[in-house]
Order: sequence, then C-alpha cells, then structure tokens
Amino acid sequence: MVRRQPSESYRGFRTAGIRMNEEMLPELQSHRTGKVTESLAGFHAFDKAQLVMLTEEGLIPEQDGIAMLRALREMEAIGIEKARAEAEGGMHSGEQYLIRKLGEDVGGRIHLGRSSGDLGQIGKRYPMRAHLLRVLEELNRFRATLLRLSAEHADTVMPGYTHGQHAQPTTYGHWLAMWAQVFGRDFDRGAELYRRVNQSPTGAAILTGSNFPINRHRTAELMGFDEPIPNTMDAILSQDTALECASVLAIHASNMGRLADDLMLWSTSEFGMIDVPDRFCGTSSIMMQKKNPQAPQEVKGVAAEALGTVVLVGMANKGSTGLPQLEHKYSDHAFWSLFKEVIRNLDWMRELLAAAEIDRERMLASAGAHWAQATDVAGSLVREKGLPWRTAHQIVGILVRHSHERGFAPSETTPELIDEAAIEYMGEPVHLSAEALADALNPAVFVAGRTLYGGPAPEALHRELGQLETKLHADEAFVQEKRAQIQEAEAKLEHAIDTLVTGVPQHA
Amino acid sequence: MVRRQPSESYRGFRTAGIRMNEEMLPELQSHRTGKVTESLAGFHAFDKAQLVMLTEEGLIPEQDGIAMLRALREMEAIGIEKARAEAEGGMHSGEQYLIRKLGEDVGGRIHLGRSSGDLGQIGKRYPMRAHLLRVLEELNRFRATLLRLSAEHADTVMPGYTHGQHAQPTTYGHWLAMWAQVFGRDFDRGAELYRRVNQSPTGAAILTGSNFPINRHRTAELMGFDEPIPNTMDAILSQDTALECASVLAIHASNMGRLADDLMLWSTSEFGMIDVPDRFCGTSSIMMQKKNPQAPQEVKGVAAEALGTVVLVGMANKGSTGLPQLEHKYSDHAFWSLFKEVIRNLDWMRELLAAAEIDRERMLASAGAHWAQATDVAGSLVREKGLPWRTAHQIVGILVRHSHERGFAPSETTPELIDEAAIEYMGEPVHLSAEALADALNPAVFVAGRTLYGGPAPEALHRELGQLETKLHADEAFVQEKRAQIQEAEAKLEHAIDTLVTGVPQHA
Amino acid sequence: MVRRQPSESYRGFRTAGIRMNEEMLPELQSHRTGKVTESLAGFHAFDKAQLVMLTEEGLIPEQDGIAMLRALREMEAIGIEKARAEAEGGMHSGEQYLIRKLGEDVGGRIHLGRSSGDLGQIGKRYPMRAHLLRVLEELNRFRATLLRLSAEHADTVMPGYTHGQHAQPTTYGHWLAMWAQVFGRDFDRGAELYRRVNQSPTGAAILTGSNFPINRHRTAELMGFDEPIPNTMDAILSQDTALECASVLAIHASNMGRLADDLMLWSTSEFGMIDVPDRFCGTSSIMMQKKNPQAPQEVKGVAAEALGTVVLVGMANKGSTGLPQLEHKYSDHAFWSLFKEVIRNLDWMRELLAAAEIDRERMLASAGAHWAQATDVAGSLVREKGLPWRTAHQIVGILVRHSHERGFAPSETTPELIDEAAIEYMGEPVHLSAEALADALNPAVFVAGRTLYGGPAPEALHRELGQLETKLHADEAFVQEKRAQIQEAEAKLEHAIDTLVTGVPQHA
Amino acid sequence: MVRRQPSESYRGFRTAGIRMNEEMLPELQSHRTGKVTESLAGFHAFDKAQLVMLTEEGLIPEQDGIAMLRALREMEAIGIEKARAEAEGGMHSGEQYLIRKLGEDVGGRIHLGRSSGDLGQIGKRYPMRAHLLRVLEELNRFRATLLRLSAEHADTVMPGYTHGQHAQPTTYGHWLAMWAQVFGRDFDRGAELYRRVNQSPTGAAILTGSNFPINRHRTAELMGFDEPIPNTMDAILSQDTALECASVLAIHASNMGRLADDLMLWSTSEFGMIDVPDRFCGTSSIMMQKKNPQAPQEVKGVAAEALGTVVLVGMANKGSTGLPQLEHKYSDHAFWSLFKEVIRNLDWMRELLAAAEIDRERMLASAGAHWAQATDVAGSLVREKGLPWRTAHQIVGILVRHSHERGFAPSETTPELIDEAAIEYMGEPVHLSAEALADALNPAVFVAGRTLYGGPAPEALHRELGQLETKLHADEAFVQEKRAQIQEAEAKLEHAIDTLVTGVPQHA
Repeated sequence: MVRRQPSESYRGFRTAGIRMNEEMLPELQSHRTGKVTESLAGFHAFDKAQLVMLTEEGLIPEQDGIAMLRALREMEAIGIEKARAEAEGGMHSGEQYLIRKLGEDVGGRIHLGRSSGDLGQIGKRYPMRAHLLRVLEELNRFRATLLRLSAEHADTVMPGYTHGQHAQPTTYGHWLAMWAQVFGRDFDRGAELYRRVNQSPTGAAILTGSNFPINRHRTAELMGFDEPIPNTMDAILSQDTALECASVLAIHASNMGRLADDLMLWSTSEFGMIDVPDRFCGTSSIMMQKKNPQAPQEVKGVAAEALGTVVLVGMANKGSTGLPQLEHKYSDHAFWSLFKEVIRNLDWMRELLAAAEIDRERMLASAGAHWAQATDVAGSLVREKGLPWRTAHQIVGILVRHSHERGFAPSETTPELIDEAAIEYMGEPVHLSAEALADALNPAVFVAGRTLYGGPAPEALHRELGQLETKLHADEAFVQEKRAQIQEAEAKLEHAIDTLVTGVPQHA
Repeated sequence: MVRRQPSESYRGFRTAGIRMNEEMLPELQSHRTGKVTESLAGFHAFDKAQLVMLTEEGLIPEQDGIAMLRALREMEAIGIEKARAEAEGGMHSGEQYLIRKLGEDVGGRIHLGRSSGDLGQIGKRYPMRAHLLRVLEELNRFRATLLRLSAEHADTVMPGYTHGQHAQPTTYGHWLAMWAQVFGRDFDRGAELYRRVNQSPTGAAILTGSNFPINRHRTAELMGFDEPIPNTMDAILSQDTALECASVLAIHASNMGRLADDLMLWSTSEFGMIDVPDRFCGTSSIMMQKKNPQAPQEVKGVAAEALGTVVLVGMANKGSTGLPQLEHKYSDHAFWSLFKEVIRNLDWMRELLAAAEIDRERMLASAGAHWAQATDVAGSLVREKGLPWRTAHQIVGILVRHSHERGFAPSETTPELIDEAAIEYMGEPVHLSAEALADALNPAVFVAGRTLYGGPAPEALHRELGQLETKLHADEAFVQEKRAQIQEAEAKLEHAIDTLVTGVPQHA
Repeated sequence: MVRRQPSESYRGFRTAGIRMNEEMLPELQSHRTGKVTESLAGFHAFDKAQLVMLTEEGLIPEQDGIAMLRALREMEAIGIEKARAEAEGGMHSGEQYLIRKLGEDVGGRIHLGRSSGDLGQIGKRYPMRAHLLRVLEELNRFRATLLRLSAEHADTVMPGYTHGQHAQPTTYGHWLAMWAQVFGRDFDRGAELYRRVNQSPTGAAILTGSNFPINRHRTAELMGFDEPIPNTMDAILSQDTALECASVLAIHASNMGRLADDLMLWSTSEFGMIDVPDRFCGTSSIMMQKKNPQAPQEVKGVAAEALGTVVLVGMANKGSTGLPQLEHKYSDHAFWSLFKEVIRNLDWMRELLAAAEIDRERMLASAGAHWAQATDVAGSLVREKGLPWRTAHQIVGILVRHSHERGFAPSETTPELIDEAAIEYMGEPVHLSAEALADALNPAVFVAGRTLYGGPAPEALHRELGQLETKLHADEAFVQEKRAQIQEAEAKLEHAIDTLVTGVPQHA
Repeated sequence: MVRRQPSESYRGFRTAGIRMNEEMLPELQSHRTGKVTESLAGFHAFDKAQLVMLTEEGLIPEQDGIAMLRALREMEAIGIEKARAEAEGGMHSGEQYLIRKLGEDVGGRIHLGRSSGDLGQIGKRYPMRAHLLRVLEELNRFRATLLRLSAEHADTVMPGYTHGQHAQPTTYGHWLAMWAQVFGRDFDRGAELYRRVNQSPTGAAILTGSNFPINRHRTAELMGFDEPIPNTMDAILSQDTALECASVLAIHASNMGRLADDLMLWSTSEFGMIDVPDRFCGTSSIMMQKKNPQAPQEVKGVAAEALGTVVLVGMANKGSTGLPQLEHKYSDHAFWSLFKEVIRNLDWMRELLAAAEIDRERMLASAGAHWAQATDVAGSLVREKGLPWRTAHQIVGILVRHSHERGFAPSETTPELIDEAAIEYMGEPVHLSAEALADALNPAVFVAGRTLYGGPAPEALHRELGQLETKLHADEAFVQEKRAQIQEAEAKLEHAIDTLVTGVPQHA
C-alpha cells in the first residue's frame, strides 16, 4: 500500500522491478526530462482538459478530478516550467507531480485512456500550432512593409537581371511587389498546413483509443483544436504533417534566402544599389574598411538549415509505420530552432528593408548603361518600321556587338549605327526616327510603357498592389480568427475547471 | 534580304555573326533540342494561343497570323514531336519551323512580346499541371480501393505495433482507413499546389512583359489557366512553386514508402501476415526458395529519389533572383521521371493491395500471443475494481514480467497470477473476475470495445469510412472539373483558330 | 589617449563612431559571444601561439608580448571559459581581455597579422580535430568488441536475409565481422579526413596573410598541426573539408543506423533472435507489456540528422567563394551536436552488443525452417548427380513451391519429393542420396562448408578476424601517434612561453 | 528433357511454373533488361572470368567451359550490347545467351557458385571504377591548366572578397592556385575511394559464397581488382562505398559550382573582370544584348544534382541490412548520369578558363578603388609609428568612414586626413610619411609584400606552384598505374581463355 501514498520520491512507472529488471540509462531519459521545454504548455493544457473530460464523463471519482485540477492550478502558481522540471518525467511530469502531491490513489487516475502517444503528439502539434501562427503573423507584417515600400518605389527605375546579366529595366517597386506575391504564397502554404496541424490527437492514446468512453470532441474543444483527428492510428503513426511543416518552412526560408542574396549582391561595391543599415552589419578585425552585411548571411544560413531539416525529417520518417518513433526527437529539436530563426528573420528583414538606403541615381544610370533597354530598340523597329520581331532582334543584336567592339554606349547610339547593323543583316537601312530611338534608349520610358497586367509601369503596379492589399487583409483576418479560437478555448477550459472546482453548475 | 526568305537551313537567332562571334558548343544546346520532350505540347499550345492573341489584337498583320496558324496545323498533321525535332530549336522549335516554312518576314513575327522566359515557364507549368492532375486522379483510384478493402476487413483483427513491438490489437481495416486519411491529405496538398501551378506566365516575357499591348488574359484563357500570374517578374524569377512541387511529391512518396515498408515487414517469414501476389515478386538466381517482393522496394526507391529531388531543387534555387536559370533543367529532368514513377507506384500498389492475400488466422493469433491486449487487463482492474489506472498498469507490468520469466502465455493467465502481481506491487490481491479476465485477454473483444470516434471497432470504422467516402467524392469532382476546364480551353483555342483561318467571325 | 588605457568597459573594435555610425543589433553578435564555446580552447591556444611567435620574431615589443602571455596564464587560473565569457567578444575574447587588463597600448598588439579569418578557421579545425580523434578512438573500441564477439559467435548459426526474406544460413559471428569491416572503412575515411583537417590556417589572416614577416610554420608547430595550409586564400575560403566532415559522419551514422535497424528487427516478437538489455529500453505509460528498444532508435535518429547536416553544409557552401561566411555558423552548430551524438552512439552500441542476449536455438531453428538452405539442395544435385546448376536450381524451385502448396517443411523433404520435382521439370527423376539430402538440409552443415575466402565457416571467419585485428592494431597506433603529437605541441607551447616569461633563453 | 536443349525461346529462370505461379509484371523486369547498359562490360568480363575459374578449378566439365568461352567470344563479334539486348535477362544476359545457344546442359553451368548478388555488385563496382578513373584523369588535366594559368597570372592584381565585400588585393594567379589546392584534395578523396571500390565481390555470391571451392582470388585477378572483398556478407550488403561515392562527387561538384559562381559574378557588367568565351554563352530571344554564361550554370546545376544524389543514396540505404536492395537501382541510375556530367564539366571548365579573357586593368583599378588596401595603411602606422595594431586599425576605420561621408577616394588620402582620424580616435596626430602612405595605398605593393608561406606575392606563389606540380605528377602516376593494372588484367583474362580454348598450357 505504501506505493500508493503521496511521496516526493515517486519516480514514475518505468522503474526496475515492474516490467523491467534494470533501470534505464539516464542519458536515454533525455526526451522525458530535458528536451521537452517547448511542449510543456501543451502537456499542461492536455492534463487539464483530460481531467475535466474524465470528471465530466464520470470516468474518475469527481473529488479526485477536482483535487487534481486544484493541484494543477497550484502548479501554475509555482510556474509550470519550474514545477514540472522538479517533478521530472518529461511528458509525464503532470502525472508525476500529481502522484507526488496526492498519491497514486488520486494522481494515478489522470492517465486513464491516454498514452505517451497522444501526449507526444500534443507535445508536437501544440507548439507547432503556436509557432506557425507567429510565422503567419510575421509574414503579414512583412508583407505590409513590402506593399508600403513598393508603392513608395513605384518609379524607382532599376535594372532587372537574368543569368546574372542586365536583362531589362524595371522598378524597385516591381521587385518588392514580386516578393509580396511570393510571401503571399508562403502564407497560403502555412495556412493550409495550419488546418492540418490544428486537429486533435487527444484520446487516440497509442493507436486505438480506449474502451473507456473517452470524449475526444470535448478535449479537442477545450484545447482549441478544430476537431479530433478522425482515425486514432493516423493520429499517432502518420508523419506527413511533420514533413510538410519542414517543407513549408524550407520553401519560405529558401525564398527569404534568395531575397537576402539579392541584397548581398546589390550591396557590393560594384553594384552599389542598396546600403544595408549599419546595425545589421559588422566590420573586420583586420580590414577596417569592411561593412559586412551580416543579417542577410544569417538569413541564408537558415535557408540551408531548413533544407537540411527536410532531409532530417524525411529520413527519420522512413520505415514501417510502427517503427520510427524516438527518431522524431531529432526532428522536433530541429523544428523549434528553425521556427524561431524564421520568425527572427522576418523581423530583421522587415526592419532592414524599411531602413535600407536605395541609391536611385545609380540604379537609374545602371539601367541605361548596359543595353538593358535593347528590347525596346528592336520594338521600335517593329512599331515604326513594321519589321518582323526576329528581324528587328537580329539587327539590334548586331548593333550591340558593334557597341562592344567599338566601345560606344547605348546613349551614344544613332539611327546611322542602327542602319549599319540593318545593312549588315538584311542589306538595307531602316531609317528609325531619332525620336523613337531616344525613347527606346530611355529606361524610364521603357518602364512606363509596361502597363500590361502585372507589369512594372506605375499604374500597373498600383493595380497589383491593390489586389495584394485585399489579400493581405483577408490573411490578417485569418490569423486573428485563429488567435481568437485559441483564446476562447483557453477561457472555456478555465471556466470548465471553475465549474468543477467550485461545484457551481456550468452555464456557458 | 536573303536572310528573311523561307529557308530550311535557318538555324535560329543565336548564330555567330549576330550578337556573338562564335557558335555555341553543341552540347550546351541540349536544353534547346533534346531534353524538352515533356514540354513540347505546352510550347505548341502557347505558339497557337500567342498567334491567336497577336492577330486578334492587331499586333501582327492578320494574313501573317493566319499563315502561321495554318502552318502549325500542318505541323500537327506531321506530328508535333517529329516536326519540332526536325525544326530544332527546342523551345523555339515553333518559330524555327515557321521561319523555315514561311520565311522570317512571316514566321519572324510570332515571338513579339514574349521571351524564352514565359516559354520556359510554360514548358514547366504545362506538363506539371498535366502530371499533377494524373497524380490526383490515381490518388483517388487508390483511395477508393483502400476504402473498399477497409470495409471488407473491418473485423480482420491484427496486432498494431509501435517501436517495432506489439502494442495493441487493431484491425487491418483500421490500418487501411489510416492510409485513406493519409492519401486524402496527399490529395489536398496536391490540389492546393495545382491552384498555384495553374496560373499563366504567358505575356510576362522575361520580367516586365512588353510595351506592345499584349493580352495576357486571352492567352491564359486559351490555355486553360485560371488567371495570368499577377506580377510579371514573379512569373519568371520565382522558384517556390517548383520547390513546393518537389515537396508535395516527396511527402507523398514518403507515405507510399512507409506503406511499402509495412508490406515488406509483414510479408517476411517471421511475420507472415500478408502474401504479395507473385506478379509483383522475383526469385533468385541462386536461392530458388526466394519470393522477393519487388514492387514495394521500387516504391521505396522512389521515396529516396523524391527526397533527393527536394534537395536538388532547393539547392538549384539558391542565389540572387536573377541568377539561377539553367540550373532548373536539372530540376525539370528530375520532375518528369519522378511524376511517372509516382503514378506507376499508385497503380501498382492499388493492384497489389487488392490482390494480396491476408492471413487472418495468423494475424488474430499474433494479436493475442504477445501481450498486445495487456492494456485491457489493466483496464478491467480499473473498471471492475476501481483501481487507479497507474496502479493497475504497474500490477499488469509485473504480471507480464512474470510471464516472460516463467514462460506462461497471455491465454494462460489466471486471476491468481494477477493477484500475485498485485500483492507484489501493493501488498494485497485484487480478485479480478474470471469473466472480466477472459474478455480482457481476447483481442477481438479489445477491438470491439474501441467504439470511440476514430477507433477500430467496426461500427466506428464504418462511420469513418462514410466520412472518407464523402471527401473522396468531392475530390473526384475536383479532378473532373479541372479536366473539363482544360478541355474547354482546348476547344476554345481551336475555335478561335477556326474563326481566324476561315475568316468567319467568332461566335462562341 | 584615454581610449588606449586599460578599461573594463572596452567593448571591442566594432563600436559606433569608428567605421560604422550605429551599434550592431545584439542578436547579430551571437557568433561572437555565445555560440563559440566549442572553439574557446582553440582561440586560447592560438592567442598564446600567436604571442610567442610575434615576440620571437620581434614583431611586437618583447615586454608587451611577455605581459600578454602572463595575462593569458592568469586567465587560465580563472578558467578560460569563465574569463572569456566575461571579456565578451567571442573569437576576440582574448584580445578584449588583454585590452581590458593591459590597455590597448599593450593588448592592442596581439592581433597583428591575423584576422577573424584564421581565428575563425581555428575555431572550426581545432575542435573538429579533437572530436574526430575521439570518434576514431571510439571506433577502435567498438571494433575491438565486434572482433571479440565475432570470435565467440563463430558457430552461432542464424538466417541471413536479402529483400527481407530468408536467403541463406550464416553465423552471427560472420555478421559481426561484416560490421568490423564496415567500421574499419569508417576509420579509414575518418583518418584520411583527419590529415586534411590537421593543417594550420594560422597566419593566413583573411586571404593573403600579412606583409609583416609572420612565421606560419611556428604557430602551426606550437598548435600541433602537421603543416600550414599551403595557400592562404584556400585556408580561409575553401569549404570542402567541412563538407567532407559532414559526409564522413553521415556515412558512419548511416552504417550505425543500419546496424540499429537490424537490432530493431531482430528484437521484434516475431524474429525474437536478440534481446536488448533492459537498460537500453523503455516501457509504455499505457501498454505495460512493452519493452521498447530505445537506444537503437536514437542511433537511427542521428543517421537522419547526419544526412540533413550534409545538406545543410552543402547548401550553406553554395555561392561565390567570397560570399558565404556567416552561414557556416549554422554548419558548425550542427557539427558539434553531431560529433557528440556519434561518440555517444559508439559507446552505447558497444555496450549494448556486448550485453545483448542472443537466442541461439531460435536462430538455428529459424535458419532451417524457411528453406534458406535450398541453395545446397541444388548444390548436392550438381555435386552428386552432375546436373547443370540451372537445372538443379529449377528442380528445387519446383520443390519449394510444392512445399508451400502442400505444407511440408524443409526437414520433411524426401528424395522422392525431389524426384517428383525433377520429373516435372525434365521428365526424369534424379535419385539424390538420402545422406546428401540430409546434409543439404542442415543449416550448420551449410555454414561449415563455406570455407572460402571471406566465408562464414568458422575457420574462414577466424582467418578474417586475424586480418581485422592486424588492421585494428595499426589504427590504434595511428590514434596514439596523433594524440602524442598534440600533447608534444602543448608542451612545446608552454615551454616557449616559459622561456619568454622567465627570460631564460630557449633550449628545446 | 526438352527444357535442357538449346532454344531461342528460353526466357530465364524466373518463369511461372517453377517457384512462382504467375509471370512477373513486365515493368518490374526493367532492372534486368533495360537499365543495365552501364554494367554490361562488367557482366561480360565476370562471365568470362567465372568460366575460366570454374574450368581451371575443375568445377565444370572442361569441354563445357571451353564451349561457353567460345560462345562468349562469338558474342563479342556481334557486339555485346546488341547480343545481350537480344538475349534479354539483364545481368543474366550472359547465361541466357549461353543457354539459348548451347542448351541448359552446357550454358546452365556458368552460374555455379555465384548469384545476382555478386553479379549486381560487379555491375556497380566495375563501371564505378572506370568512371572514377576518368574523373581522376580529368581532374589532373584540369589541375595542369590551373597551374599553367596561375603562373601566367602571378602578377595579375585583383580584389579579393569576403562577405561579398572588397577585402584585400590579391592576384588572379593566387586564386587559381587556391583552386589547384582544392582540386588536389578532390583527387585525394577520389583516389582513396578508388582503393575501396577496386575490391572484388566475385565469389561472394549472395552472402556466404559457396561450398564449391570457388577461387575468389583468381576472378579478382582476372578482372583487375586489388583483392577480393574479405567478408562475403560485407561484399553484398554494405552500402557505405556507394554513399561515399556520392559524397566524393558532391564535394567535387560543390567545389566546381563555387568556381562557376565566381565566374558568374565576375562576368556581370558591374564586376566586368572576366569575359567568358562566346562558345560557352547563349543570348536571348528577346534581349539581344544578352551574353549569358551558360556553361557555369550547367556546372552549378550538377552541384545541385550531386547533393540530391547524396540524399537519394543515403535514404535508399536506410533499413535493416537484409532489406534495401532494389532501391539501389535508383542510386545507380543517378550515379551514371552524375559521373558523365562531372567529367563533362571538368572538360568544359578547363577549356573555359584557358580561353577566358581577363580584364587586368579593371581588376587592378578595382583592387585600389574600394579601400581593399586599408589593412596596409594601418600596417604602415604600426611599422613606421609603432602604434599597436588595434589603435592603427581604429584610426583607419575612422578614415574610411570619413572617406564615405565626404566622398574622397583611397588615392586621394593624405597624411593630414589620417591625422584627422588619429586625433578623433586618440587626441593626437600620427604624422605618417607620404612615402609610406603612397606604398600602402598601392594594391600592387600590397600583393608584393605578401611573401609569406602561401601568400600571393609572385615569389611565394611560384614556390607554391612548385609544390603543386610535384603533387600533380605523383597523381598522374597514380592514374597511369591503375590504368596499367586494368589493362594487364584484361590481357591476362584473354590469355587464360586462349590457353583453355586452344588447349595449350598456360605460360604467362
């Protein structure tokens, strides 16, 4: 009988002399004691929701349920992190705390109809939900900044690049709007994942649930989940949502890394189009002239880490459904770091872009200096002279080669030079007008003419920004709704505990 | 002038003497000629839609547009694969064909306002859309089979495993329903991706579109896309959809690989629960007793390849937005193989599962032979004797240890053996009734009692299957709708061509 | 002048008002302060070796060099981890400590001719060398255990598997020897890497070394490196050794994970061939019958993490040589965890294998029960009856099919049953002798006959073990030699400091 | 008896009616027929060596051995690729050919004592050895070019970069020597791998060899292997060498990708330091000004593919040793593509670097224009004025800030400007001499002063190149020796066949 009394020395169910003859190596218990910090809030909420449900359903004596709920509230006064660390037991720290305080006769009743299986899944889904919501929120703040900056830079002409080479003039605002589109898709992927994550494993126990009449909908509701996962085996054994989470983070981190790479390139001395604020930069212990953009490199490091995490998770998942289990500790460990870095990066990059200095003059000059506007010289031959596109294209190709061979700049091009190329290509001149040529050589005119749907002309860009804002508002509403759902569930859980503990019938 | 006449020797715009002084190495032209087979249908459709749009908008002379459309129809009579191979030029095979046939004065007009950029994106999105739709379709066929088999095996009791060890009895039907849930999520991920893929890059040209009044909505409509991509730079430079595609395939392949691993394990001589049909098996050139399940191993190989493809795509994407371009050839090459293997695997596994022989007797015997039912022995102590869960758990833990030490089977357990464990744990016996014990030891009773939401009891499983069928029907409708959209666009395109070619005003 | 006096408030060279106008964000300084714990010993040794070299070469005033060396020894009395944490500055904590204590006029002289570049590389190579040596050492201990166990189990007959199916009888000793071969190759890969790692970046500064006559060979010698890296740019910018390190660890972790997977499989109830000691196992909070092998799952988790780390490092490395820098923080962070887990796993698995219980009877019975010996039945037809191998193979193939169709066991096979198959195949019986058949059906005879080079027969195995021991001894000598080299360098460094500090001319 | 006669309709051992009741799905046979092209030479050599050994050892009738060897020589006259394709059977195409020609009574004897296991391993190791040797050879050619170019550019001053920013002046020759060092390590890794690959699996059969007295050393010798793999199970089940091969290729491809990234960056209009020859470049169908460096992008794509292949192989390997088998088809398929691309890239890049135009003037100007030489300004304060390094560093840091704030160039710096910074930092001027300042500001002087071991000064570089040449010669000898070994084995095999076929006793 001694074993069933309160005892601070209670060490949990896996002790030598019960199922096993040896104690487990201490280092193997790490998943139980140390590395579950991120999951403690979820364990605690599940402990409370479980007790409310068991008591309401009459599956444990009411006074025992009440005693345990009271003890958990006392634990909150101490601080759950501290109290649970002292109680040991990792995911079972709630039960161990209760048994130490109330004895096994009372505290030994909390775990009826559940398992390390659903507890462990809560330990993953609960913090994943919270982190994911933070990511979505930060994505929205970041997108809002992108939209504001894009509008400000609707006429900041800059060169666009492909294959690393000058392609065509565009605007910094158009580039920013591109990123708003990209991060809008990142939001969508995150929101779609959120719906798959926010389902409750509670009551699935280890595979099959329980033959006690556990109310899975009630615990799901009290913890703010949309619904119970509809197959109890699926709730425990499936790993696709974890792999999806790694993928969604990796896609986002890849996008952010590419943006960071643009900043790295454009802030070189050679490009010199953007100046990263000092506070994001380091210098060198030997090369005092250095201003090293540090934050973008950290951002890129996270892109690498995220892709590695996809592989970690994918590799850990491999195997017969009933096999890989503890491997997932390694995935989880990676997830929590990654989430924090992703959130940090969004914060950094929002501030960095807002504060970065843009060298508009250099951008504009560069956009005109390396033949990025050549497309429109050919276009003017089509428009004014009715040449087929390909013919015009080839003539200007020859012109550009001449320009490199002889060293004249785009701005020095004359109708005569074009005629020389035309004659070389097709045996006759084209006589392009000087006005058309001047327009074609002007990168600002280049941009202004791109009024088509999705194009860089300011009027087209402002239309696009309007659409992007509409979507952003909808996405902000999504986040608010999900936050509200969680808060309501928290209130509902506390209310249910109040009702039980005070004995007053439940009204809500 | 000679250059502008029809000529079978026309070799395209990248010849020495125009922009460059040297011919390009032949091997470097591979992306243009050889490896674009998967993209040819997309190039061809774009060529036609582009000509319709240019002609309708008056951007090229009507008679030239009509001549080119007629030539493309002649090309179809030859077969576009053959004709385009002869024309060379890869993504530009349409233009090269037209110039060879009609001269640059006519054929040189097709490319107005577009670029290798939007052509290349069509070469990726068009086949990706088609393959993805096939995957979704095959997923639905596979899920239908899973649902049918699950219903048939609602009472096929088998052991469930965690950590590779016997966990609890469940049913083969419950396991099948789990997979139906998993592949339902795979469908959702694929459908969400489909919406992001089925947007049109046409008219985005290389970054900025064109200053000719290109009608992007018209080409999008004629090619069955939901809408034009709303930012022209995004249409060309963003890589997140490709990485998402790799991820969605890898998640699915990982799921399928895990299912295959279950089959590999369960068809070992030691487990002996399932027999893979001979046609999916090989034997050995030296060990003639061998019946090697081959198909599941191929399926697992694809899971490995798919995870590698995520890394390939993620790594290829890295860099400043205007940098990685030709790297994506390597991604694309990987995509097309992977899609075909994924579709093949779905077909194989549907047939394999439908034809596999299940050894129900061995499954049932195994479910009772290794203490998988121990949970319910403890449960019966809670239910009949009011013990706290943890106390009951520890008593049965001792019982199981005794069973291993002394060699008695679960079925040989008596109330006295339980009392012995209870006395060892808490100093007094529990006097469990023989009836309760007998029920607790019976794996079929174990399963029948799991009637909770999502549980393995037949009645719970049938409820779940009902939900799964509803979702499947919705998903089948999704695929049909997308197929119809594509077919309507094809009809619309042909109708538009007819209208132009015959000169009859367009009615539709 | 104030700035150059000793001051505890000295905050390092990157303060606002020098090169930059803003302070750096505190979170961006993490690589300087927090995450360099693993590298502190290397920084400290470099600080000392650098001062010795600068003083010996007359590059700084002798009294300043001596004062700084004395201060570093005082730091050691405090404990370098504590003292450097207080000094802040991360890799520059040595300089900051010296400036705080001795003023910039003295402490500001340590960094002459070096950079964060070579410091940072020391921060990577110094701990990598130490960890790698530990891995090699643990590999040798593990291999020694494998060899001992292999000899003990030279006649423990067990089934060998391919495609998950019974292939041929072998021995547990042969399987253990296979692993000794595998881990011998892991040693070789590690030792080859060690040679590439143990080269000194000191004096390479950031790319080009210095125009002060820095003695790179002297610092290399004082820190136990084989030689200075022979190109100063290579010393700083190349990343191949890091990627090789990740690969070598991943290959080893993959091997260990496969071994763990064998243990997971063979300790299932169905295989039941091996029993993992209780101390490596957990049980379940709900399924008290469970004995979950935990350590092997952790080992498998590390294999997943290691493969992810290869991708992290490979992805972080991508880019123009002068670009990726801070990305490597993420690689390094991953390396140190991984090294510790790899070392832990080697320790666990050595102990686990040594203590595991092998069920020899079940292994032997299983080796004969599922037709693994069929190869030799065919072999006996070749040997006794002169049949071509393929003919014999096909006859026995038919026999095995009959055995499955009719339910007779291998041990129940008679010459008549073979004749029936022979007649079915080729129209005539073969009349195999009963003696030959009995031998062929005996798995122990099967093994005993495999005396060929590398085979499982005890005599062949013992020959192999002899070779393996010879190699192991050589590898143990390698580790000892490398340890000695490092210890001698440590002594040499202290001696050089003694010589300078005491003013006694250097003898050694 | 009919089955044992020659018959062109012979379809191999895996037909319905022997072990299995159903034919195998045709698509599952792909590994047997289609995808083994790369392995055919290995299968053929093994078939011959196996027959020589079986005949020499008296394990098959001599006349049968001779008949089969003659038939294989006839096959060579047809062409083994064609003959084996017609014979079907993939890795068993040799046996199938022989049975079709000579009947099972003769041809059915070849497979005695071997299996798909050792055949399959030969199918991997034989082409891997050949490809690897080609890679090593191409690496040496590439390194030779790097050494030549490095010597030519020993005084081509250019800026060195870290964090993407101007770091210090160096030379193009120094950068080339860095790559020679890197690719020297790639050679070493490849050569070390070669030793592990060039071991013979022959005679290991499927796990245990055979109880026929197979002579494994003889077949190893006849196929040019260094020795038989010393454990027969290891020969078949271990996967570490495949993972190492993927890693070695990925490390090399990563190095080459980084070099390509340097070229991409340095050939932008903004950097403009290097001009990629036209034949490696494309242009655009819309932007006729474009000169897109294509080959470097292909090279980078291969780096991505190679990293993905590491993951593919690592993931495919996972599982109990007796499980993953056919998964390796996917690895092999990836290997053969990758090898060819790696060899192609080495060829391209050697030619590209040799032909690229270097803009020496722009490099030199750039090296002096962005304060890369600042380190030496501080150094001159240390040397001439005895300032502590850190003090000098901070003063020049302030100077550089002033230069950015006021817009003066490095070349415009005066002693007075330095004094102003010195006063700002420490309250007093430093009076640096104009001569020292002029030298310090000159990037060519910067480089010339770096004469330390491994530094960029021409004299140091030439010393380094001397060492690199010595190593290159040794590595060239390694390749020649390995080629000779293979050629000798080929001669030995033909000689052994001659001896048997002609009946003349063997002399060699």
